[in-house]
Order: sequence, then C-alpha cells, then structure tokens
Amino acid sequence: MHTFTGVVPPVVTPLHADGSFDKASFTRLLDRLIDAGVDGLFILGSSGEVAFSDDERRGEIIAAAVDHVAGKVPVMVGCIDMETKRVIAHAKQAKELGADAIVATAPFYALGGLREIERHFRQIHAACDLPLFAYDIPVCVHTKLPGALLLQLGKDGVLAGVKDSSGDDVSFRFLAQENTAAGKPLVLLTGHEVVVDGAYLSGADGVVPGLGNIDPESYVKQFKAYQAGDWDEVRRLQDHLTELMRIVLVTTGAVGFGAGVGAFKTALALLGVFESNRMPEPVPTLVDDNVQAIADQLARCGFQPTRTAAEVSCGEYAGE
Amino acid sequence: MHTFTGVVPPVVTPLHADGSFDKASFTRLLDRLIDAGVDGLFILGSSGEVAFSDDERRGEIIAAAVDHVAGKVPVMVGCIDMETKRVIAHAKQAKELGADAIVATAPFYALGGLREIERHFRQIHAACDLPLFAYDIPVCVHTKLPGALLLQLGKDGVLAGVKDSSGDDVSFRFLAQENTAAGKPLVLLTGHEVVVDGAYLSGADGVVPGLGNIDPESYVKQFKAYQAGDWDEVRRLQDHLTELMRIVLVTTGAVGFGAGVGAFKTALALLGVFESNRMPEPVPTLVDDNVQAIADQLARCGFQPTRTAAEVSCGEYAGE
Amino acid sequence: MHTFTGVVPPVVTPLHADGSFDKASFTRLLDRLIDAGVDGLFILGSSGEVAFSDDERRGEIIAAAVDHVAGKVPVMVGCIDMETKRVIAHAKQAKELGADAIVATAPFYALGGLREIERHFRQIHAACDLPLFAYDIPVCVHTKLPGALLLQLGKDGVLAGVKDSSGDDVSFRFLAQENTAAGKPLVLLTGHEVVVDGAYLSGADGVVPGLGNIDPESYVKQFKAYQAGDWDEVRRLQDHLTELMRIVLVTTGAVGFGAGVGAFKTALALLGVFESNRMPEPVPTLVDDNVQAIADQLARCGFQPTRTAAEVSCGEYAGE
Amino acid sequence: MHTFTGVVPPVVTPLHADGSFDKASFTRLLDRLIDAGVDGLFILGSSGEVAFSDDERRGEIIAAAVDHVAGKVPVMVGCIDMETKRVIAHAKQAKELGADAIVATAPFYALGGLREIERHFRQIHAACDLPLFAYDIPVCVHTKLPGALLLQLGKDGVLAGVKDSSGDDVSFRFLAQENTAAGKPLVLLTGHEVVVDGAYLSGADGVVPGLGNIDPESYVKQFKAYQAGDWDEVRRLQDHLTELMRIVLVTTGAVGFGAGVGAFKTALALLGVFESNRMPEPVPTLVDDNVQAIADQLARCGFQPTRTAAEVSCGEYAGE
Repeated sequence: MHTFTGVVPPVVTPLHADGSFDKASFTRLLDRLIDAGVDGLFILGSSGEVAFSDDERRGEIIAAAVDHVAGKVPVMVGCIDMETKRVIAHAKQAKELGADAIVATAPFYALGGLREIERHFRQIHAACDLPLFAYDIPVCVHTKLPGALLLQLGKDGVLAGVKDSSGDDVSFRFLAQENTAAGKPLVLLTGHEVVVDGAYLSGADGVVPGLGNIDPESYVKQFKAYQAGDWDEVRRLQDHLTELMRIVLVTTGAVGFGAGVGAFKTALALLGVFESNRMPEPVPTLVDDNVQAIADQLARCGFQPTRTAAEVSCGEYAGE
Repeated sequence: MHTFTGVVPPVVTPLHADGSFDKASFTRLLDRLIDAGVDGLFILGSSGEVAFSDDERRGEIIAAAVDHVAGKVPVMVGCIDMETKRVIAHAKQAKELGADAIVATAPFYALGGLREIERHFRQIHAACDLPLFAYDIPVCVHTKLPGALLLQLGKDGVLAGVKDSSGDDVSFRFLAQENTAAGKPLVLLTGHEVVVDGAYLSGADGVVPGLGNIDPESYVKQFKAYQAGDWDEVRRLQDHLTELMRIVLVTTGAVGFGAGVGAFKTALALLGVFESNRMPEPVPTLVDDNVQAIADQLARCGFQPTRTAAEVSCGEYAGE
Repeated sequence: MHTFTGVVPPVVTPLHADGSFDKASFTRLLDRLIDAGVDGLFILGSSGEVAFSDDERRGEIIAAAVDHVAGKVPVMVGCIDMETKRVIAHAKQAKELGADAIVATAPFYALGGLREIERHFRQIHAACDLPLFAYDIPVCVHTKLPGALLLQLGKDGVLAGVKDSSGDDVSFRFLAQENTAAGKPLVLLTGHEVVVDGAYLSGADGVVPGLGNIDPESYVKQFKAYQAGDWDEVRRLQDHLTELMRIVLVTTGAVGFGAGVGAFKTALALLGVFESNRMPEPVPTLVDDNVQAIADQLARCGFQPTRTAAEVSCGEYAGE
Repeated sequence: MHTFTGVVPPVVTPLHADGSFDKASFTRLLDRLIDAGVDGLFILGSSGEVAFSDDERRGEIIAAAVDHVAGKVPVMVGCIDMETKRVIAHAKQAKELGADAIVATAPFYALGGLREIERHFRQIHAACDLPLFAYDIPVCVHTKLPGALLLQLGKDGVLAGVKDSSGDDVSFRFLAQENTAAGKPLVLLTGHEVVVDGAYLSGADGVVPGLGNIDPESYVKQFKAYQAGDWDEVRRLQDHLTELMRIVLVTTGAVGFGAGVGAFKTALALLGVFESNRMPEPVPTLVDDNVQAIADQLARCGFQPTRTAAEVSCGEYAGE
C-alpha cells in the first residue's frame, strides 16, 4: 500500500541522437534517483515528454520503468491526452504494464467547463481502479482546477491526490487547509522546484520537482528536514536548489519546454547520465554556448560535469 | 488537381447513443452536403471531434468518408495532435486511407515559440507529401500563427493554405493582401460562420463553416454570389445564417464545444439526418428544454424538424 | 439633434517637442478632417492619448476642439478613467465645455464583474445627461462588454450607442442584428480600420478609425459608397486603406501605442499637419529609420510627405 | 531614515454611508494598526481604493494619515494612475503632504513594452526624490515586472524597493536571491496574505497584507517570529490568518474588489472600527446574509463582532 508522499521526481525521458528512446540512459537515471532515496517516480509527466510520445513510445517507457524499478518505489504514470476516451486508453495501458497510480489533467483542446472536468475525472476513475491523481497544470491545459471540486472528488473516492503545478500558491494553501479539516482525503504534491519550502509550510505531502532529476539528494534531504521540523535546513537546501534551477535561465534563444527540459537533459548529458541531450521534435536541442552556460552553472553549484560542452553538443544546428 | 476553395464544411461526427461511430448517419450527412453543392469536406476538424477520437476512431471516420465520397469532392483530414511526431503519424494514416489534403495546428500542450512552430510544419510536410493546411485556432491551441510565418511557409511550398479560425479579422485582411501581392501561394479559408461576408471582402478563397452542416445550401449560394460580385445577396444570406447560428446561443447550461457542436448535432437529429445527438465524453448531451429551444430556432429560420424534442432527448441526465 | 453616425475619427493629440499641447497643429488637423467631410470628431479617445492626459490637459483639448469646431460637426469626448466617480467628473467637465456626447469604457484596475459594469454606466448616465456611448475596448480595459447588457442599456435609455474596438466581429454581428430587431436603440460605431467594409456588411452605423487622421477622404468616400450600396467601391477603398495602415507595421522596436499612434503622429508630421511627432511619456518618439519607413509607406500609398525624415526626427534618442 | 521593512498594512479607506471620506473611522483604524505594532502604513494602495479616488479625495486621505500618524511610523503612498505624467502629479502631491515613500505600478491602459516601463520608473524618480517602490500587480495592470529590470533599477538608485502582489512566487524567489547577491539594493515586500510564511522563507523584508487591517497583531507577531527564526510559530500564525482570510470567500454574488475589500470593510464595521462598510461606486456594498457570513467567520477565528449584521447592513439593495 503506497502513500505516494515524499519526493517523486518527474522522470525526464532520454533519447538517442536519432530520436529513439534510450533505455540504457533511462535506467541509469532511475538507478540514480532510487539510490538518492526518492520515494516514488512519476514517468510520462509533462517533463517526461508525454505530449511528444505516441502510444508505442509510452508503452516502451512504462515497461522499462516498471521492470527496472521492480517495486522498490511506486511508479506513477502520466496519462495525458486531450479528452476522456483517450486518457482512459492510456490508463488501461498503464495498469496493464504495472503502474501503481495514474495522473491525468483536465481535458484540453475542446472548450468546456466545470461539468466536463468533473465527468472526466469520474469516468477515468470508473474505467481504471488505480489511484488517480489530478494534475493541475493550467500553463499546459489552460484550466485551473478549483479546490472545491478537487476536494469533493477526493471525498467521493474518485481522486487519491493532486499534483499541483498551477503556481497558484494561495489556492494551494486554502486547499491544504480544507483537505486537512476534511481528514486528508487527498495526497497533495507540489510541482514547485524553487519554493518547495513554502509548499511544505502550506502542508504539502510531497514534491514532484523536475530539477529532482539533477539533484535528487537535496530534495530528499529537504523532505527529511521538513519531516523533522528543521525549517532552517529546509530553507538552506531550497536556496541551493534555487541557485541550481538557474540552469533553465542561463541559455539564450530557447523558450518553454526547450529551455526547461532542455536544460535538464543537457545537465544529465554533461553529468554522464544521459548519452545525448536530444529533444523531441519540433523542439530544438541545446548546443554549444548554451550547453557551456549550463555546464558553468552546474559547476557553480558543486556539480562537476564529466563531459565537455563540445562532447555533448550534437551539432544539430550546424546545417541551419 | 484540387483547389480546396469554396465551401468546405467541417463535418460533424455522429455517434450512436452508446458512443460508437454512427456510419449510417455520417454518410447521410455527407450525401446531404454533396447534394447541396459543397466544394469539399473537412473531416476530423475541431467540430468533427478529432480531439475525442483515438487512432482507431479516426481511421473509421476517414475510411468511411473517403469510400463514400469516392472522389466527388476533395476530402481534407484534420491531423490534430499535441506534437509533431504524433501529427505525422496521423498524416500518414490519412494519406494511406486516401485523404486529399491534411490540416494541422501549431503544436500544443508543451510550451514553445515560433521556432518550434516553424520546424513543426516543415517536418510534417517533409514526412507527408499531401497538400498541408495550417489550422490557426488559438482558442484551442493558445498560439496565434503569425501571418509572416504563414506566408513564408507558403512561398517555400511547405503550406498549401490556411484555415483561419482565429477570429482575428485584421490579421486575416493583412495576410490576404500580402498573399495576393506574393502571387497567392496560400489558399485562404475562413472558419467564420456569421461574418463570412466580411471574410469574402477581405479576399477569402473559401469557407469552413460548422453551421454548414445544417444549412449547406445557403453557404453554397453565398459563395456563388461572392464569385458573381453580388454583395447584396452575399449579405442577405449572411443575415439569414447569422440568425440560424443562434442555435448555439439559445441553450442554457451548456458551454464551449457542448453548446456549439452540441447544437449542430441536435439540429441534425431534429432534422432526421442524425440518429442521435450523443456527445463524446466528457461533454454532456443536450436534452429536453435545450433541444426544444434549438427546434424552435430552426423553425424560426425556416427549417422544419421532423422529430420532436422528446424523440431526440436521449434522457442521459435523467439519473443525474 | 446629432445622429453620431458616419465617419468620426478619433483625433490624435499633437504635442510640441517639449511635451506641451500644440493647439495650432490640433486645429490644423481639425480643419483637415472637417474639410474632408467627416461626420463627427471623437477627441480624447485612446488614440487621443486620454490615458496620458490629466484634467487640465483634457480641459485644454476639449475647449480647443469645441471652440474651433463651432458646431460644424458633433464633438464626442472620451471620459476615460478607472472608476465611476472619476469618469463622472470628466463627463461633467466635458459637458461644461460644450461636448455633444461622452464616451466611457467599463471600469478598470479594480477587479469587478457584470454588476459593477452595469451600475457604472447607469450612474454615469444619471450624473450627466449627454448622449453616452459605451467604449468596448478589452485590449485596454480587459473586459469585453456583453451584447445583451449593451442592448438592455440601450433599451433603457442609458446608452445612446457603442464604440466597438473589441475586434470581436462575431459578437458585433450578433449585436447589430439584435439591435435592428429591437428598433435600433443603439448607434453602433466600429473602431476598425482595415475591416471596416466587413463592419458595414454587419450593419455598422459609422466608423471611428485612427487611420482617419491620415486619410479622412477615403473613409468619407467609403461611407458614402456604403450608403449607396456600392460594395465594390467600399472594398476597393478598404484595400487602399489597409495598405496605408501598414505605416503601423513598418517600424522596428516600437510596440503598442508607440507603434500605432506613433505612426499616426509621424505621418501627420511628415505631411506638415503636425509640428512634431512627439509622444507622451513614457512612450518613445519615433526617429530616423522608423520615420523614413513611414515616409516610404505614405509615398507608396500616394501621400507625398512635405518634410523629410530628418526634419521630423526630433533626435530624442541621440543621447540614449 | 526609514527602512520600510516589516508589517506595512495597505490601509482600507472608510466611507460614510453617503460615499464621502470618513476621517474618524480612518484615524480609528490607523490607531488600531499602530497600537498593534505595525512598522509602516501603505495608504492609497489597491485595497485603499486609490483607483476610485480623485485628486481631492487622495489629498484628504494623505493629509489625514500624515497628520494623524505624526511620524510614529513611515507612511507610504500609492501614486497609481494610468501613465507617467499623472503618476508624477500624484507623487508631487504626496511629497507635499508629507509622504515618506511613494509606490507606483507599471503604466496601464495604453499598450506598451519594457522600454516604456523602464522610462516610466526613471522619470517618476527624476521628478520626485522620495523613495520609490515598484508595485508589481499584474492582475490590475496586466504586466508582470521582470526581475532583471527591477534589480537594475534598484542598482541604479531609481527604485528603493518592490511591493510584490504578482502571486508569482517563483519569480519572487529568484529576485530575492539575486537581490541578496547584489547587496540588497531593493527592499522586497510581499503582498501575500495566506502564504506570507513562504515569502519569508524566500527572503521577503516585509509584508503588505490587506488582511492586516483586520488582524494586525498576528502579522506583527509573525514578523517577529520570522526575525527570531521561529518557523513553527510563523507557520502557526499563518494557518490562523489563512482561516481568517476566508472572510473573502464566504460571501455569494460578490466578486473581485467587492468580495475582497468588501469583506475587509464589513469586518471592520462589524468590529466597530468603521462606521459603515460602504463601497465606492460602482461596487455593490455587502449586506444581510453576506454580512452575517463574515460575522460568523470572524467569530470562528476568535474575533467577536460588536455590531450585528443587521446594524451593519446599510440596506442599499433594498430598492434593487
């Protein structure tokens, strides 16, 4: 019986230079995370390039994770797609392949309202009996999940928890307080990276930090310090992680996913965990000065790259 | 050699009451549109519930359309998905099944920028040699395609045309003027329903009106009047169609896709073209008073329903 | 008894190089507009830099306009401010100085809802008995005025009309149709510049085009052609005006108000109507290559500048 | 020499039932705040209804505050208006009346860019030598002030600090870290109410909480606990304040300013500090059940109203 609390990194998906799934790099990353003491793994999240992955690719990733993790920690699987029927298909695939929980956003693309969102989650739950987490990520799906609806779905046993990537810390605080008053029907995970300490003050049960791919130890230590009530240590670790998070800010030209996940992949390539920092199309892969800038920032934060920027740059833009 | 100009309705997809694809109703609608003289058909558009359709469903719909239409008019197929790789897979499926052109939006879900959008369309074109139309629909994908990029991709032979559902009539006018000055590399289709006359003044080459599912004759007449320069008739027909479009406004409680496509399906069910007005999950199906309101509006515009509201209402909400 | 229909340019406000109000240039522009046959003047609109003008400046502008126009055409005055009380003060000032009508937006800055908007317009009307126009400009005030509310306020005698700068041509068409059905309680003016022909098809009673400062004759001819039902001429003039509107697109570095009104002021300075193209702080004034680009575009559209770019560039950026 | 750190409530402005400024209630509130130990006062902020106040009203409020406070704590004055010239006029008024610092937002209404924002703050500073705080409140002005610009303006001596009401806690953390690295040119105040504890972890120098009008003691205690490093106490007080903040959520029908500041005014009226909970037009004043709901929530949080809901309800809606 898993609690799905603590540090649950959204695992970044490595690709070979040709764009195919790089299973060896993936399992190296899984080992690195598990060795660091993470409490769970979230695969096929937004950072795990779920949006770029077709059904076959999703199957490869889930199977690789479930097989390799072998029950050491729970595996949560992002079942992200536009509308209910497609999400349910992903949920069934995830269950069949051994997922421990599924994670779904509000429907997107077609315009809808609260009634559609509620029906969506209820139907996913009815179709797949794995613990279901609502993924609140308005920057991608353009809907903020209202706290009152989340709590009701928690009380009704539809939702097991929420992964909050809304950036709306006020709503999160209100929800956490209401959830506690209601006997904690929901597990509340924050998707923050640089204000996780604040989310812990608000009562988060865990964290799903993209940056946890790079520095899982610090997030694990931070969660332990939080459990121990050592707020100064929680804060000190956060300050370090915030400095490290600047790898997503030091590049030029890249935006959005290409700047964020691009920096994570590049850092993992520089550190020798990933073979390549290849991005899924149509996102440009970081090269040259941008790779160097990330290497420099890693070094400033105490991470010594084992490969040079030149070794990592795959030269994709040479011909552009 | 198709021109993809004129009236090209985005065909609404009928479902049986159990949610499965209703091929008989679909071919009835196709016949109705072809008999009315439309110049092409756009299947699996936003109104064609592409977002709700998995690969198998998409295959059923494309095959049914291509087989039934049998070359009488060109069939354009929406290849809508989150990112490039998935869109390309849909494009290949569409080509294999006999589509005459494909239609793709900007990538969505993951955040990106102009560079990602340009690579996206270039790669789709490189992977599938059918004429490619850019679908500009910011309300769904949250990006407005810039005219300068569209025109460049047209000049480069990447895009054959644009389906403009942006509602940004100023940008459309500027684009139409630039496109004409550049020798018309792009076919420009408007997605408007109630200001199509204005789009024609701006130089649109055709129209893709959801309301064309209900009253294709009027759009066909309007396009002919436009070709003949009879602007008073163009306007008169537009006023009639605007009044008819109020079927999407007369309901209560429904929003977005549920109000819009919901009204189209309900009208087609009332008119005996569709067996059912069933919506795809998680969208509620219109029932009772809402169906009656649509029946009344149809009657006000000269369309006599052949079924009653009670016959159409599937009673889905009875138990809620 | 004014109808407030036809061509009503939003008069741009000239400044001396030191930022003070340039009354001589202002009256030159007023004469130019009246000589061209415009049907009214809208001063202190968004283009008339109302947002930059304090009470004293507003008073100067209104007095100059009312005195100089001397009843030849009606003068509408923008009473734009954040909330009701301040708007009412502007309205009283406008009335005292001889305005023929007032124009007000929804309240802005403080967040509110429909109830606030309705009370706002009702109270302005109760406090000032001049004809009141609602100014629908969501790009500035971040609220779209709903057609149903506008029509109700028209029927209740609160609003005399609407100046629609929403860019939402679908809502405008629906409103125009409803307004006609209700016996035309509202005068409907479009704020469009490049799709005015479409707005006329939709039933606009007039136009308030910023570009009318530069080429009032063409808008006057276009309105007459519209009245005469000569749609080909309406469209031909629109195509010319659309090409001329590119003066707001040919500059680099400037954005928003600085690009739009900046281009209008620069064109008027190049044409010898304005002494200076000085912008109100904090908006940078266009200089050098940007002025030249506007001069070139004017020439392409048949307007021969009487001053060179060097003469117009006030060199403000020399020291930056 | 003031530091402008610590607890600086944005003082709510009381009105008599007729809408005029209620100076007696205002000074009662000032005394209540000073007696509670606040470190400063921010008058004419968004909560202080600056948007609703004309120049004369602003003068009344500033004069009343400066006279009554008599130097016990610094008085910061919101100089909020659409564009630079108007802001400068407010700044000069504030200085003349004895303000200790001024607070200004980005320009709003007219569309602009970063260049306009930078010039705006530089010119305000050049025109008024009081310490200048940038007020980052995108929900009202629809622009997020970028951290890099704020820091540069701090280093250049243009800005003394930032009042952050952006709700973007990630940007705030990055800014706080960069500001510290740069030697703290900026004083960083958070506008949060329910996640102030998180802002303190991020390094905020103080807080400007609207809810501080109701419970200043708790915010003062919380700041002291923060200074002492007693995070458990910081958090405990935050949980109490979050519960109290629900007064803005318990009403029905009210939105935005009417729900938020409406609740604060109503609470102060129930507690006998304000004579009336009258809102400025066009915002409806809370009455009846809504007042009762706020009274109940106050009681749940340990505040015993001294007046009944019936006594507070001014019956404004009776005739509506």
